[in-house]
Amino acid sequence: MKLAIDAMSGDLGSSIVVEACIHFINKHKDVELYVTGKKEELTKLSDFSQIHIIDAREVLTMSEGILAVRRKKESSMVKAMMLGKEGKVDGIVSCGSTGSFYTCAMLFLKRIEGVEKSCLMAILPTYNDKGVALLDVGANAENQASHLNDFAVMGSVYSTLVRGIKKPKVALLNIGTEEKKGNEVHQETYQLLKENDKIHFVGNIEGRDILNGDVDVIVTDGFSGNIALKSIEGTAMILMKCIKESMMSSTKGKLGALLAKDSLYALKDKFDYKSVGGALMVGFEKAVVKAHGASDAKAFENAMELALKMVEQDVVFKMKEGLK
Amino acid sequence: MKLAIDAMSGDLGSSIVVEACIHFINKHKDVELYVTGKKEELTKLSDFSQIHIIDAREVLTMSEGILAVRRKKESSMVKAMMLGKEGKVDGIVSCGSTGSFYTCAMLFLKRIEGVEKSCLMAILPTYNDKGVALLDVGANAENQASHLNDFAVMGSVYSTLVRGIKKPKVALLNIGTEEKKGNEVHQETYQLLKENDKIHFVGNIEGRDILNGDVDVIVTDGFSGNIALKSIEGTAMILMKCIKESMMSSTKGKLGALLAKDSLYALKDKFDYKSVGGALMVGFEKAVVKAHGASDAKAFENAMELALKMVEQDVVFKMKEGLK
Repeated sequence: MKLAIDAMSGDLGSSIVVEACIHFINKHKDVELYVTGKKEELTKLSDFSQIHIIDAREVLTMSEGILAVRRKKESSMVKAMMLGKEGKVDGIVSCGSTGSFYTCAMLFLKRIEGVEKSCLMAILPTYNDKGVALLDVGANAENQASHLNDFAVMGSVYSTLVRGIKKPKVALLNIGTEEKKGNEVHQETYQLLKENDKIHFVGNIEGRDILNGDVDVIVTDGFSGNIALKSIEGTAMILMKCIKESMMSSTKGKLGALLAKDSLYALKDKFDYKSVGGALMVGFEKAVVKAHGASDAKAFENAMELALKMVEQDVVFKMKEGLK
Repeated sequence: MKLAIDAMSGDLGSSIVVEACIHFINKHKDVELYVTGKKEELTKLSDFSQIHIIDAREVLTMSEGILAVRRKKESSMVKAMMLGKEGKVDGIVSCGSTGSFYTCAMLFLKRIEGVEKSCLMAILPTYNDKGVALLDVGANAENQASHLNDFAVMGSVYSTLVRGIKKPKVALLNIGTEEKKGNEVHQETYQLLKENDKIHFVGNIEGRDILNGDVDVIVTDGFSGNIALKSIEGTAMILMKCIKESMMSSTKGKLGALLAKDSLYALKDKFDYKSVGGALMVGFEKAVVKAHGASDAKAFENAMELALKMVEQDVVFKMKEGLK
């Protein structure tokens, strides 16, 4: 199995990627890594026979627009994706800008046969620790019912093979639980999902129930999916910030915070959306995993593990079969 | 000034409404209340010359669909709204089901001249305590750009007159801050808002920034507004639940929780979306305020105060002027 690793595009530079690669390769002796980046920053990797360093002189920064993808052909991100295009690797991992990375995938990778639209999938932590896959979270501002139907199948196949859920419950994000809720696209999607015997559709789900963990896959149009994801992230962030400030504003509160430190940290980890590992890009012929821009070595390694698992379990092929 | 009060449709029955009415009328000697409900439950109100009891033998329960509105003509909710239709009151307050109450308003009240669509507005608490008005949060599954433009004006007028914000900052909820983000409706809305000299438009806002408090009014189509509102509510609820459970799972945590109790309660109040007072229905010729279904007497009284403030400040007339 072969993975391409973009070493340069994250907020924390190449060092965390180098650390992650070394740790990863020591665990997985049968995997080959193609690491793209400035070779002088990657010298620590040259001792490993399973690691190939691909020199890339440019970096696509977080602040650059997606158009920079076309201009910076020598960037580590484009070069990593080109390895996918050329069939040299089975998966690609980056912690660069989501927009740029997705654009790279759109430009250079083939879509799975029969899939009209690829999309972004996020795995969110839930109350019951099972987690939930939400897709599309923003690749497309508009979707047709047939696209959402494809997303349901891909999310379902992924959840079975990578998350180990036998018969994933699939729901449609909507403004009410009744069948006729939402606009035409949502109503049409409801019917398609209901008739689709390749998934286990359980009906509509409302925004307030996303994090309950009652369902495993939530299908949504890219616009409201993006709004939902970011509203959840924003609320979690603001609440944690307020808890900290509120407790620190009194002596009793400070003492309490000190005592409850472990409990609060555990919770912070659970709901730290940054550590979930970012988004997956589904619908392409390769495993494409986007680690969070602020990933540390551990988070980046998790993203690599995810890509490997997708390749090992042959997720792309099974998605293709599921969509037939 | 005259308000119609639906005494029966909330989760906690008529007693909290009776308590709220007595407290309210003792403060506002110049207001007349028309209270609809089972007269035998409202006897405590009969001593007040400013309170008129309108006997209503039916109740629209929370679980009944919106179609029940047409069937239950003798319900306290329909009778309260009819007082609005007949011009006997300036505002109507209920803590019944949002869907039913909104349907009542749609059926029986006139819309403000020139307003094609009425909508639901929620005021959310923010990090900086200023709060933010979000509209539409679900009255319409689809909106046109011209509707969103009207919502911006109504939200802005309301924020100036009732919330006391001189030049409310208005933003459009979108999946990115750039002008061209979103679908056709959002792009067209962006242009209308930019050119609208009756509001102070500051651009797009993303889901994760809703609760920051940087803007005062957020305009959104009813579908994604509903998803955003409920995602925020759900996240806040799950997080507070997790904090409690996490702290209670260890002795140190329990001690900490005891010490930090005051800080945590203050926060719970701040982000308790149930206590914010529910939603306002804007675009009608009357002040229509929907208190939360689980309102206690204090929360219901707050909703009455809001309705009164809207009438006193002549919000409906000023919205009409703003829309010309």
